Amino acid sequence: MAARLGEVRATTTNERRVQTGMEEQVKPTERPLGRRRFLQKAGIVGATLPVAGGLVISACYNDPTSNGTVRVTPTIESLPGPSQTNPSPTVSPVEAMDQGHEKVIEDFLANQAKPLTAGKGNQELPPTLDNGVKVFDLTADEVNWETTPGKVEKARGFNGMIPGPILRATEGDRVRINVKNNLLASTSVHWHGLRVPNAMDGVGYLTQDPIKPGESFTYDFTLRNHGSHMYHSHHDSSDQVNRGLLGAFIVSPKDPALYPAYDKEYILIMNDTLLGFTLNGKGFPATEALTAKKGERVLIRWMNEGMMYHPFHLHGLTMEVFARDGYPISPPYLCDTIDVPPGNRFDCIVTADEVGVWAFHCHVLSHAENTTGFFGLTTVMMVTE
Amino acid sequence: MAARLGEVRATTTNERRVQTGMEEQVKPTERPLGRRRFLQKAGIVGATLPVAGGLVISACYNDPTSNGTVRVTPTIESLPGPSQTNPSPTVSPVEAMDQGHEKVIEDFLANQAKPLTAGKGNQELPPTLDNGVKVFDLTADEVNWETTPGKVEKARGFNGMIPGPILRATEGDRVRINVKNNLLASTSVHWHGLRVPNAMDGVGYLTQDPIKPGESFTYDFTLRNHGSHMYHSHHDSSDQVNRGLLGAFIVSPKDPALYPAYDKEYILIMNDTLLGFTLNGKGFPATEALTAKKGERVLIRWMNEGMMYHPFHLHGLTMEVFARDGYPISPPYLCDTIDVPPGNRFDCIVTADEVGVWAFHCHVLSHAENTTGFFGLTTVMMVTE
Amino acid sequence: MAARLGEVRATTTNERRVQTGMEEQVKPTERPLGRRRFLQKAGIVGATLPVAGGLVISACYNDPTSNGTVRVTPTIESLPGPSQTNPSPTVSPVEAMDQGHEKVIEDFLANQAKPLTAGKGNQELPPTLDNGVKVFDLTADEVNWETTPGKVEKARGFNGMIPGPILRATEGDRVRINVKNNLLASTSVHWHGLRVPNAMDGVGYLTQDPIKPGESFTYDFTLRNHGSHMYHSHHDSSDQVNRGLLGAFIVSPKDPALYPAYDKEYILIMNDTLLGFTLNGKGFPATEALTAKKGERVLIRWMNEGMMYHPFHLHGLTMEVFARDGYPISPPYLCDTIDVPPGNRFDCIVTADEVGVWAFHCHVLSHAENTTGFFGLTTVMMVTE
Repeated sequence: MAARLGEVRATTTNERRVQTGMEEQVKPTERPLGRRRFLQKAGIVGATLPVAGGLVISACYNDPTSNGTVRVTPTIESLPGPSQTNPSPTVSPVEAMDQGHEKVIEDFLANQAKPLTAGKGNQELPPTLDNGVKVFDLTADEVNWETTPGKVEKARGFNGMIPGPILRATEGDRVRINVKNNLLASTSVHWHGLRVPNAMDGVGYLTQDPIKPGESFTYDFTLRNHGSHMYHSHHDSSDQVNRGLLGAFIVSPKDPALYPAYDKEYILIMNDTLLGFTLNGKGFPATEALTAKKGERVLIRWMNEGMMYHPFHLHGLTMEVFARDGYPISPPYLCDTIDVPPGNRFDCIVTADEVGVWAFHCHVLSHAENTTGFFGLTTVMMVTE
Repeated sequence: MAARLGEVRATTTNERRVQTGMEEQVKPTERPLGRRRFLQKAGIVGATLPVAGGLVISACYNDPTSNGTVRVTPTIESLPGPSQTNPSPTVSPVEAMDQGHEKVIEDFLANQAKPLTAGKGNQELPPTLDNGVKVFDLTADEVNWETTPGKVEKARGFNGMIPGPILRATEGDRVRINVKNNLLASTSVHWHGLRVPNAMDGVGYLTQDPIKPGESFTYDFTLRNHGSHMYHSHHDSSDQVNRGLLGAFIVSPKDPALYPAYDKEYILIMNDTLLGFTLNGKGFPATEALTAKKGERVLIRWMNEGMMYHPFHLHGLTMEVFARDGYPISPPYLCDTIDVPPGNRFDCIVTADEVGVWAFHCHVLSHAENTTGFFGLTTVMMVTE
Repeated sequence: MAARLGEVRATTTNERRVQTGMEEQVKPTERPLGRRRFLQKAGIVGATLPVAGGLVISACYNDPTSNGTVRVTPTIESLPGPSQTNPSPTVSPVEAMDQGHEKVIEDFLANQAKPLTAGKGNQELPPTLDNGVKVFDLTADEVNWETTPGKVEKARGFNGMIPGPILRATEGDRVRINVKNNLLASTSVHWHGLRVPNAMDGVGYLTQDPIKPGESFTYDFTLRNHGSHMYHSHHDSSDQVNRGLLGAFIVSPKDPALYPAYDKEYILIMNDTLLGFTLNGKGFPATEALTAKKGERVLIRWMNEGMMYHPFHLHGLTMEVFARDGYPISPPYLCDTIDVPPGNRFDCIVTADEVGVWAFHCHVLSHAENTTGFFGLTTVMMVTE
């Protein structure tokens, strides 16, 4: 998928590569790609506009409805909403708004080919083994984090990324996590959802002295309960978690039969407030598209690390929700909009049974779209043949 | 019910009829009706004050409790809350507040007889048939919409109403929806919850070019999944949906046995922010009362099209919640407060097993009552013998 | 527990007793207790710092991770978040913040020994019996209420306390509640969740005239449905409930086998906005710790009387949620973060199977911790051997 999208981008955008550390960065496209080409190049449809039987596009459509209610004959002055600045004397406010909407969609497509922002979170961190103990090394860092193209925030992350690296192990494993504090503030790490000995719970002054700047602390425990869990700072947490000191801790059940089969996996961590509305540390158009082949079962592990509610709506497909905080939901339930409150984790399976580019966004619409188009908590699920 | 309430109103209010298109409008009552008369005229109770055995009203009640905690001897100066403007030198702040609370209840009763505001949403739109295809014609309009008596907002609605017309069909039906854009902005229509081909999903620049002002677009698809669904704009949606471009799309199951039996049906669509707190496009006292005969099973299809959470509390009766987003909840659950996150739809049955006027309101109390009495997300369920 | 904590406090704090009515009040400690002593004195651990195998604390820790992402070499100027005022020329901003965090933990411990604030809500109110009727006497009072040490709010409470007294009875009981209004405003009382005759439902101007200042009203009804219910003002309710006119009404099932067995019970009522973020009328550090012996089953009856959502996260232990609004949840579900929307009540059992001091707080982190440490919706569950 990445290769094909990369090819698309190369032929349609006037790109500018900027080396920023290890990331190759692509600036947002200057010329819109056009919807038809978007779908075509994304491999979703053929070269012609997809039309259903009976499709009619007409500017002289005759309105057959007439029920006597008070309607307004629109004039420019009666347009509701914030006034649109006109970027050119030849572009109407309506066209200007539409061009903005189209451009962010183009940027999002370009982002799938080559990231438009520096930095990528949620990278796997394979453990080292020490006499059977799985050892993970984490640092808590002050970072400059680019949430959307050109928007760089003073943030904090584990191992320099937001979300921090994915930690994975199996129920029954003993793990050791070495945490080095490179922050200008003290910190501590709470293993959110994991059933650990109290001294390992990571709450400053309650279960441990906080880790001072420059110091380290080692957490060491055996994994008692499987599930989609999290880890995050628990010191000055409304600042530190909100700025990015968080990550996923995935514990597989010892008996794999206890977990549903799936073909692909995504971890989606929501955040808001200090770094804006982000999904895995990025706001649209810098968010990652979920992709699947038709028929695949896609696992999504939802985690809300923010301070708000974000009911996510999936267009055209259905989510089967089977676990909450690592515990089974019995029976699983189906929905198209899933609400994961702050602190909760929900696991669901999407069966990709319909081809297309399906919008997937927070249905608190002010977290997902404004007059300049999609932003924040928006991505898509792309299902291809 | 309407006739009886109309009769009540005619004898108790000093009404002023204003012709506004097809609506007959009644201005809020000037003289309060009085609670006893309210209940009496509403047909809920007899002419005497309903009292339970042992009822005592006494201003010289002797307080037997005394546990030593610090209580305040109240003075006017110690009254918490915003100061009440005194409408008359002879009315105390307490009386002024109470009169305000009583007046909006009176207005609400009057509204049940004859609407206090112009415009009514959620009207059924019967389809026409074209070779077996159910055809609906929608227009997206700029409208002036009266949300509460005298409060007219620059809004947007389908077919000039908020919510737009109710679309109904049956699982397996093929439908065609002709959408004409009369707005000053581009738009598109998303069939929220319906499993449609991607090209029919209605997301601007993602699945179609937006419908420009004056242009039309025809959606055409077969209904694959039943349930209480929605349709709404998906272009500049945080403005357009919030201003009213939304409606209910009800798909009955092909096998009626898959849906519970009911005697009456209500569709309740919540919204907030740009048009204030509204239920079906109106804020209290312009909201519609739900009515039932004792013993009836009342179906409520809940839809949250707003940007906030609105846990609705039903007094005195119980809701049995059996569907989420059109999918069964197994087993159904009972509650008296239902929380439908933005984007979700929940179906429930209320068995009207107790006669009375039961308050029914958002329990985020600041969405339902302030110092001037009920407002916004408030209605009642009136159960009569 | 209280006796032991009292003993702790006496030896570790420089207390100042103030007689305020029937409450003995202790001002917040001036000298921090220290984490080690906290745990030790709380009886959770021995005199030595609890360490897990392999624990390493080192300021010269060598960071083995290096993945090329952009990290910031921190300087004082690059510190994110609000600047910290330095209380002393010799204390760094980091230390100043940490000392604040430690101090509120110390205060919380001291509060478990002797309350740091005047006034205690949720006290049991045993009924008197009148010919088989259980009679409760309530007053609605203007009160000065200390939510956190030194912060006194103009509030309103039943029988001078926030939450009001706990009312308990059994399904099938007839109850009579005499309500005397000592407020400077009218009021009424709604029995939230109870299935009562309409005239007893307590909604001003809808089911009764409000109770004027100085007057009384008697509610009289038979308890038809068991569960964890509430009572609160239903007149100017966004002010009166938010200021404290609320309480728990617990109705036991006639057949005790219908309710799970438990060893201890807590009622936790959330509120927000006008009196700040409170749990049972108090904000951290004035909140009450939940305590249990290892192996005990602790019942928690959750009630949200606020205007916001507060998903509560319990560290290290698991909640089994079995009732919503008094109706069974089938099957019960397990979680570590429970979300009780405004107006709902949820019952859950925590099995105290792991010894320790487990943080227990709203995971909307801005409701629970800020740069000065924990506040608001925070408490702990202390499990001892």
